[in-house]
Amino acid sequence: MAKVADRYLVVDTWKVVEDGFDPGRNRVSESIFSLGNEYMGVRAYPEEGYSGDSLIGSYFNGLFEEIKVAAHYKGIIRFLRFMVSAVDWLYVRINVNGEALDLATSPFSDFRRELDFKRGKYVRSFVWHLADGKQLRLTFERFVSMNVSNLGCQRISFEPLNFSGQVDVRTGLDFSVVHEDQGRCFWQSVRHGWEEGVTAMLGETTGTKNRLYSGFAMDVPNAVQTKPVEAERFIGQDVTIRLTQGEASTFDKFVFNCAEKELSVTNDRLWSAGLQQAKAYVGASYEELEQSQANYWENVWKESDIVIEGDPDNQQGIRFCIFNLYQTYHGDNPGFNIGAKGLTGEAYRGLAFWDTESYCLPFYIFNNSRAAKSLLEFRYKSLPHALARAKELDCAGAFYPIATIDGTESCDLWQHSNLQLHVGTAVAYGIRHYASMTDDLDFLYDKGLEMLIQISRFYATRGQWGQKTGLYGYFGVMGPDEFQLMVNNNCYLNLMAKKLFEYTLEVIDRMSGEAEEAFQALAERLDLTAEEQVDWRSKAEKMKIPQDPETGIYEEHDGFFDMPHLDIHSIPVTEFPLYSHWSYDRLYRYDMIKQPDVLMFMFLYSGDYTIAEKIANYEYYESRCIHESSLSPSIHSILAAEIGKEAEAYSFFEFATRLDLDNYNRNTREGLHTTSIAAAWMNIVYGFGGMRSDGGRLSFRPTLPARWDGYSFPVSYKESKLLVEVDKQRVSIKVVSGNPVDIAIYGRSCSIDSTGMTFELEQLVGQ
Amino acid sequence: MAKVADRYLVVDTWKVVEDGFDPGRNRVSESIFSLGNEYMGVRAYPEEGYSGDSLIGSYFNGLFEEIKVAAHYKGIIRFLRFMVSAVDWLYVRINVNGEALDLATSPFSDFRRELDFKRGKYVRSFVWHLADGKQLRLTFERFVSMNVSNLGCQRISFEPLNFSGQVDVRTGLDFSVVHEDQGRCFWQSVRHGWEEGVTAMLGETTGTKNRLYSGFAMDVPNAVQTKPVEAERFIGQDVTIRLTQGEASTFDKFVFNCAEKELSVTNDRLWSAGLQQAKAYVGASYEELEQSQANYWENVWKESDIVIEGDPDNQQGIRFCIFNLYQTYHGDNPGFNIGAKGLTGEAYRGLAFWDTESYCLPFYIFNNSRAAKSLLEFRYKSLPHALARAKELDCAGAFYPIATIDGTESCDLWQHSNLQLHVGTAVAYGIRHYASMTDDLDFLYDKGLEMLIQISRFYATRGQWGQKTGLYGYFGVMGPDEFQLMVNNNCYLNLMAKKLFEYTLEVIDRMSGEAEEAFQALAERLDLTAEEQVDWRSKAEKMKIPQDPETGIYEEHDGFFDMPHLDIHSIPVTEFPLYSHWSYDRLYRYDMIKQPDVLMFMFLYSGDYTIAEKIANYEYYESRCIHESSLSPSIHSILAAEIGKEAEAYSFFEFATRLDLDNYNRNTREGLHTTSIAAAWMNIVYGFGGMRSDGGRLSFRPTLPARWDGYSFPVSYKESKLLVEVDKQRVSIKVVSGNPVDIAIYGRSCSIDSTGMTFELEQLVGQ
Repeated sequence: MAKVADRYLVVDTWKVVEDGFDPGRNRVSESIFSLGNEYMGVRAYPEEGYSGDSLIGSYFNGLFEEIKVAAHYKGIIRFLRFMVSAVDWLYVRINVNGEALDLATSPFSDFRRELDFKRGKYVRSFVWHLADGKQLRLTFERFVSMNVSNLGCQRISFEPLNFSGQVDVRTGLDFSVVHEDQGRCFWQSVRHGWEEGVTAMLGETTGTKNRLYSGFAMDVPNAVQTKPVEAERFIGQDVTIRLTQGEASTFDKFVFNCAEKELSVTNDRLWSAGLQQAKAYVGASYEELEQSQANYWENVWKESDIVIEGDPDNQQGIRFCIFNLYQTYHGDNPGFNIGAKGLTGEAYRGLAFWDTESYCLPFYIFNNSRAAKSLLEFRYKSLPHALARAKELDCAGAFYPIATIDGTESCDLWQHSNLQLHVGTAVAYGIRHYASMTDDLDFLYDKGLEMLIQISRFYATRGQWGQKTGLYGYFGVMGPDEFQLMVNNNCYLNLMAKKLFEYTLEVIDRMSGEAEEAFQALAERLDLTAEEQVDWRSKAEKMKIPQDPETGIYEEHDGFFDMPHLDIHSIPVTEFPLYSHWSYDRLYRYDMIKQPDVLMFMFLYSGDYTIAEKIANYEYYESRCIHESSLSPSIHSILAAEIGKEAEAYSFFEFATRLDLDNYNRNTREGLHTTSIAAAWMNIVYGFGGMRSDGGRLSFRPTLPARWDGYSFPVSYKESKLLVEVDKQRVSIKVVSGNPVDIAIYGRSCSIDSTGMTFELEQLVGQ
Repeated sequence: MAKVADRYLVVDTWKVVEDGFDPGRNRVSESIFSLGNEYMGVRAYPEEGYSGDSLIGSYFNGLFEEIKVAAHYKGIIRFLRFMVSAVDWLYVRINVNGEALDLATSPFSDFRRELDFKRGKYVRSFVWHLADGKQLRLTFERFVSMNVSNLGCQRISFEPLNFSGQVDVRTGLDFSVVHEDQGRCFWQSVRHGWEEGVTAMLGETTGTKNRLYSGFAMDVPNAVQTKPVEAERFIGQDVTIRLTQGEASTFDKFVFNCAEKELSVTNDRLWSAGLQQAKAYVGASYEELEQSQANYWENVWKESDIVIEGDPDNQQGIRFCIFNLYQTYHGDNPGFNIGAKGLTGEAYRGLAFWDTESYCLPFYIFNNSRAAKSLLEFRYKSLPHALARAKELDCAGAFYPIATIDGTESCDLWQHSNLQLHVGTAVAYGIRHYASMTDDLDFLYDKGLEMLIQISRFYATRGQWGQKTGLYGYFGVMGPDEFQLMVNNNCYLNLMAKKLFEYTLEVIDRMSGEAEEAFQALAERLDLTAEEQVDWRSKAEKMKIPQDPETGIYEEHDGFFDMPHLDIHSIPVTEFPLYSHWSYDRLYRYDMIKQPDVLMFMFLYSGDYTIAEKIANYEYYESRCIHESSLSPSIHSILAAEIGKEAEAYSFFEFATRLDLDNYNRNTREGLHTTSIAAAWMNIVYGFGGMRSDGGRLSFRPTLPARWDGYSFPVSYKESKLLVEVDKQRVSIKVVSGNPVDIAIYGRSCSIDSTGMTFELEQLVGQ
């Protein structure tokens, strides 16, 4: 089951570099070299047209299509919604004397591409060998602006090495892109035209009527001739550029994209607003825009860089992760969420899962709390959908979807969408986590509590009382461990629901004291009754949390201890992933688990459990876990670090930062494991840094992996910013901005200010 | 939850009669008045064209189409196969002076239709009132021949009441029939023509290339003119018939249909074979054919009639059941099975379930043992498919499909097709039941044991050992009670598998003694090892069959006793059927059951359980059962009769024989509940007749329902035929053909011969 790196790319701590072109790996590179700015994302496909294996992927956060699904029964979804593949705004075709460039067929040399973390851009260059011996160096640059989220920029430089002449360039906006998974294009053109230096098209999806205005301006100093061109679902310009031997002629394209899901906005308004903004880029300077992009990223690294000494691989890896977390989400646009693959591919359909609150949210809480809040706002905005979904499932309150793009449920496997209830508790945990780390009571009282109350109502109606035990719990559920399809009293879920009830009651108690008037208004609006609070209290108290009194091991669900045992190491490597090689039902009948479940709650509520309990449960469940979720190893690594299994902790960490760079799961071609990237950050900060944030106060128990010389990471906490630095002897912590804060280091309370404190590095409990 | 009769039809003990026409009930009547002869079936749709609500349904046993389904995971089916709607061979259009007949728009009077159990034909008549005051009496007769299974006959009589003139008739074969569930026609014409008095078309299904030759001859004494006519997927004749006031002019059509699934048969061969046989009906006599049909049915009633004195409703009902059991299946054509709706509609897609062995087989064992054997031959023929399916599910041996038309799995709900394992044990039970009641050792040794061995192999690889209990059982299954989606150790399944292993070993033991050479050949062919027999023995011995030692109640599956309780009588009537009104997952989290599960095995292995155990389990499970399967009430009735709950037994029986006649489930419009019809027979013979056939010897404990004056039923047993007659005082049993047999009455052994024996009617154990 060991994962094996597919080492290929050059190691560079501030860049991803591919030296030479391997067509067999092109799709993998397209994912890795993807660009995004939260508003839009674009795979690193060869924009000049490529007849080899490639996925043209250009995505806009939240833009979706839907298809009707045959629903057999009540409560099973009727529409499958997915992030739709959108306009290829980088479209270009290049001809010299009628000879077309296509890397699948044209001879070329000196291929190299780079993704630059410091400047936030993607550069690709090579020398094209034409049939008549001419050699033309082409350099393609692109970036999507972090400053103006609608803006995408492209520069192509042509440098003839041994001739002078002309190159014919067709550039444009191509709405005829096929959504590969569905095998068809979902776009139609509503309007197009050339006005005021802008070439534009307004496209519309056929089913959902989502619209996208795309308009571009060009800057081509050596243009000889320019001519408008159009085709079905395509608009553009044909440009002929003069080339002089040894000199670079540039072609710059500034594309303004504006997505609109609101049906009430007229096409005219969309068109004129788009034009208004797009034309601002007529005469723009590529250099200036590119420099301001670099400035943005300079700030990001100032805020969030993790430095690892003595391990360039992981240094590159963690920067790749942080780079992509910012690319995918930074909270500029409320209403967005984080798809499992970000904006880098069609896999998982662009849908967001519980990964958002369970794996991504911590990164944002401790790096960019505005973004963290914005993520929770997504859940608040989609509360009406969650209320409707609960009703569909014959329950009260709010049931958050297991997979969503717009707040509605979009998982077409009913066994997951109807039986997996853990998104709601993850949202509640996220609210609690965010509020306790930021002290943002405004959010908590204004929106957080409303969600908590509605989520609690769901859990109070979905659960039932065991007839023999008299205890409360959830029957007919699937926990995070998806290898147990439908069980009763999943321990993780029961525990999380218990905590949910307790926290909701705690916030009610606190708000009714601290903000009485606002609370009364809320209680009235939601018809909050004393009876339901009594009910939640009683359900929390009588929640079934089964633990073997002798061993201290929690039983993952009713009957788990009697499930047939399988030595997971006896499964031949060729049978992984099991989903593809085992009959579907066979997955469900062993004591083998897919990902942490009991261990997950022992991490989330770390302070509630003793080291002895953690050791006992880790030993039991780790040996049964096959990690068929890319989110799994990091949680194991964090717990292993805590219980002193240093080598194991490092071995689980080993592929965390480079999961995609080294294509460990051999499916990076489909897109990046964006939410797993967030787990890599957790792995370093919670794992080696030993940070815990589940109590009222932040605490640290840093360790240093044997292979590292040192590392440092920043943490935002209650409006201050801390820097934690670890080397072979010492741990130093200081406040780099904001007021002094009280935290705990190795269990000792201390107040940290800007001068900081230094501690000796401690050995943790051994095995 | 009480079922309510929708009384509408006239009660007549030898017919079904509808007096007057109710367009809102037309589809229901189309199902009820269906005709079939096992080879083909046809709904009672108005063949003259009807623009109202109607389902043109003409079906051929085993003819199927398939559509590809998107399979998410391994082991989930890739093709959905279904009985395809086929040629409308009764097609006719009737015009008088350009005025077309259509009961949805034409005025008419004196409508009446009858289904005649004695003659096996369907007759419909009415008077058509033409716009100009003319009145034409039309009588439509049809039957599908029980003697020549390819033959369907139609007679239309025209009797002008107040005029003389002409009628224009277009008759033909219409292959353009739309399969309603799929919304399209699956047929294309391969060849058509008029030769030697036969008008014919050879049709082919587009996907599966199943073929159907259909050719007809006509006899129209008063024909004035005849002209061939054709259209897309249609061929026919236009006939003008002279009408004389007060006289009936007849139009007779003899249709020869021949279905072919074998691809190697050429179209030429099919065509000429069809023509050869169809032309034999040129010049045929309708009266003669109709009389020989009546003769066939006379024999059926001699063989199988159940007489009920003092209850014309149930008398009509049980004859309707027996009539339909013979119509659906009588074993003339090996390779056929019995769809849940027989040949009467598209619902359940024409697929056969475990109903065949569990509910239908007993009727055939005791009425027509050749048909019983033929049903088991279907499973033998499809053994290769079952072997392949087991492999797909990572198991050894044979896994019989939960729903099938051709032996492959065709249930597209993976939760049923992958988790329901009980067809295999039902087949094994059927083999045992058939062999023990008929002493047909040839079948048992020639085919039965091979199936038993392969089925045992499946159950020995699909099951697992409980880690805590050390007992064997099945994890991740759905029992017959489909309200428990995925459970461990379903008690019914575990018990049936234990019995399967034991019986397989018993037959191995017996055959190796009685037919050593044949056994050695079989063992060699199947690689039967001593080790696997030891393994089966050990699994049978260590099978988990959980029973509460205090109450004697069997636990339906692990954890059932802790499942949340629901008082089923508290569910509002409007919420039934729950499948339509409750969120799908909600069905699965109560101690409510859909149909008997524990009670089912207490019936199947009745002799193994004491009356006290039956009472305890009946009280417990009956109060939790909502009978959302039409198969459920009869089993409850049989057990209620046995434990002395006479009133309850009758109340569960009440809708058994008239389920469709009185449209209890309000869905008879989709087709008849053909397999439930078989349960009605079981209800009388096993329930009131108290027959038990699970031991080595047949036994009876007859009771008489309070509302009846008496009843009698025949039973074939070991090549003899018994007649059981019950009146208010006595039970008489005699052999009506064959040798004397040893049976038990009220627990007393006796040898019955043709003079018979008479016993006093006994009261059974009271409550």
